[in-house]
Amino acid sequence: MTEFQFKVQATDGSARRGELHTAHGVVQTPAFMPVGTAATVKAMKPDDVAATGAEMLLGNTYHLMLRPTAERIDRLGGLHRFMGWSRPILTDSGGYQVLSLSALRKIDDHGVTFRSHIDGSEHVLTPERAVEIQRLLGSDVAMVLDECPPFPVTPADAAAAMRRSTAWAERSRAAWQPRPGHGQFGIVQGGVFPDLRAESVAALRAIGFEGYAIGGLAVGEDAATMLATVESTTAQMPADRPRYLMGVGKPDQIVGAVMRGVDMFDCVLPTRSGRTGQAFTRIGPLNMRNARHVEDSAPLDAQCGCVACRQFSRAYLSHLVRAGEILGAMLLTCHNITFYQDVMAELRRAIATGHARAWSEEFIARYSRAAS
Amino acid sequence: MTEFQFKVQATDGSARRGELHTAHGVVQTPAFMPVGTAATVKAMKPDDVAATGAEMLLGNTYHLMLRPTAERIDRLGGLHRFMGWSRPILTDSGGYQVLSLSALRKIDDHGVTFRSHIDGSEHVLTPERAVEIQRLLGSDVAMVLDECPPFPVTPADAAAAMRRSTAWAERSRAAWQPRPGHGQFGIVQGGVFPDLRAESVAALRAIGFEGYAIGGLAVGEDAATMLATVESTTAQMPADRPRYLMGVGKPDQIVGAVMRGVDMFDCVLPTRSGRTGQAFTRIGPLNMRNARHVEDSAPLDAQCGCVACRQFSRAYLSHLVRAGEILGAMLLTCHNITFYQDVMAELRRAIATGHARAWSEEFIARYSRAAS
Repeated sequence: MTEFQFKVQATDGSARRGELHTAHGVVQTPAFMPVGTAATVKAMKPDDVAATGAEMLLGNTYHLMLRPTAERIDRLGGLHRFMGWSRPILTDSGGYQVLSLSALRKIDDHGVTFRSHIDGSEHVLTPERAVEIQRLLGSDVAMVLDECPPFPVTPADAAAAMRRSTAWAERSRAAWQPRPGHGQFGIVQGGVFPDLRAESVAALRAIGFEGYAIGGLAVGEDAATMLATVESTTAQMPADRPRYLMGVGKPDQIVGAVMRGVDMFDCVLPTRSGRTGQAFTRIGPLNMRNARHVEDSAPLDAQCGCVACRQFSRAYLSHLVRAGEILGAMLLTCHNITFYQDVMAELRRAIATGHARAWSEEFIARYSRAAS
Repeated sequence: MTEFQFKVQATDGSARRGELHTAHGVVQTPAFMPVGTAATVKAMKPDDVAATGAEMLLGNTYHLMLRPTAERIDRLGGLHRFMGWSRPILTDSGGYQVLSLSALRKIDDHGVTFRSHIDGSEHVLTPERAVEIQRLLGSDVAMVLDECPPFPVTPADAAAAMRRSTAWAERSRAAWQPRPGHGQFGIVQGGVFPDLRAESVAALRAIGFEGYAIGGLAVGEDAATMLATVESTTAQMPADRPRYLMGVGKPDQIVGAVMRGVDMFDCVLPTRSGRTGQAFTRIGPLNMRNARHVEDSAPLDAQCGCVACRQFSRAYLSHLVRAGEILGAMLLTCHNITFYQDVMAELRRAIATGHARAWSEEFIARYSRAAS
């Protein structure tokens, strides 16, 4: 059985080129994990996801615990087998979705009581239950339950949520049953307040996890504040463990965070945008509903090797989006995930060859010349 | 350039095993054409459609003339190139959809005036315009504009619609510009009245087409009446031309019509059902919303080689359907089209080897033991 292991192979400034070894295989970092909320990356077959270069997916504990339930997935052989994805999976703890999606929430030191957004049934999520659910799912990386307060937040509220998250992290670690190739990540909270972030990191390091995530960002603060918080936080984080920035983000934000020492990312943006006609390209985001695409026989992104760019024109993609065709969502999702994976692959090469700064500056400048 | 040609290679009773040669390749018959209404077989990439064994698609003139318009498709290189499908395409004339989908219809001997269901814009479809649109689309087989009256219909109304359709067929043939590998099919009308069907066939034969379709069925009459009408109609149709039963149907109805001498079919059933959780299998249709599938680790159809059956369980498909996931529509559509193509392939083998009657009886008996 594989040891759960993170190896930094090269650094370039604060940026790191690494490898994460898990029970279901190796992930090259910096890595972007497509989001497979309900045991599917929406509008994509698993083989097609793998063909984009994605090596690890994120699954949402909140959605899966409600439907089809963790117990059912366990009886069916675990999440990998259930959804036909043989590579690594990271699951979140459900905390963020409980607070953003469910109804009738009651949160206290014990945990969160809430009603399902699907059928109104009542559920309790505690740190221990979040650990148990993720063990039943069989994810390679499990996240601790945390409290992510809404933005904006006062320092006092941010501190209270962070300290509760720390107490939950202790309980989560106590409930954790080590298995070869599997790891548990703590989550740094503390809003946009550097002293709170530092306190959170120190407390989590004292508990000890296989990796550390930065939670509670990309919830409404501006991009500069987000990156400044990332920079001050990664400076405190252990160098020998993977760093995961949760829920981020736009391509230029990801590049900026990699330059500040982050190794792992997830975000619904490429998948969700793919279902609303938004395409990410090397010259920035394009809105495929825009009239200027309707008779354009050029590919979406001439440098992209995905099926949408190899086989179809912008005119055809525009038609599919306007007609509300499922194939439009399929092709744009596939393209967007491919684009994100291409960006990560280029970043990894740039870091390994010591060109990360030049590459990232060029990327961000080019990407910002965006026109829809 | 290929000649447009139909070769009957074997017969077994009234059933025929043949080949249709077109500008974009050969189609083995009996053939089922998946419906690609708006220049896409809904929820499938063209390569995945081809992988099911489908050799010819149907495109809907009504939808394409409204969006993105035949002129735009022509400027973009034709329908094959636009949608990334290099095999043969048959287009209908738009008549059926105009009468069933559009608003404010006025139908007279000149043609049909109607308002688009998309934006309310007014359009006129005449026999000549239907020929022109299909020429712009570049379909291998073009259908003449016909009038398909709603069911039930009086003999007098059926006769009037059939005679108007005959007059339109004459104008359609006059407007037809022959091109190598391309053919135009006449459409037999006449409701469920054998004498009207016979009059329609005779009139169309006198005009002369590359093939003949049976229109106006599967609009509400019972299956036995439908098959009886098919049987009496095919008996009058020329043996050396392809026979196409429009809009049919359920697998057992297709098998029944092949046994009565039909060569080509189209129907939205496998695609539309795939988007509503209905699966066609060798033991009949299954409703994947049914509770008995939620923890069934067996494949949908153990004898099927499609991706849905090779990689996933009934439990997973059930989960996707219940969660409203696009992947559920993708996988069930792919399975259903594969199932239809498998049925056609088995039928072709049975006809070629003289076992059509035994095979069809066994299929219909097995298929009717359906349980959801």
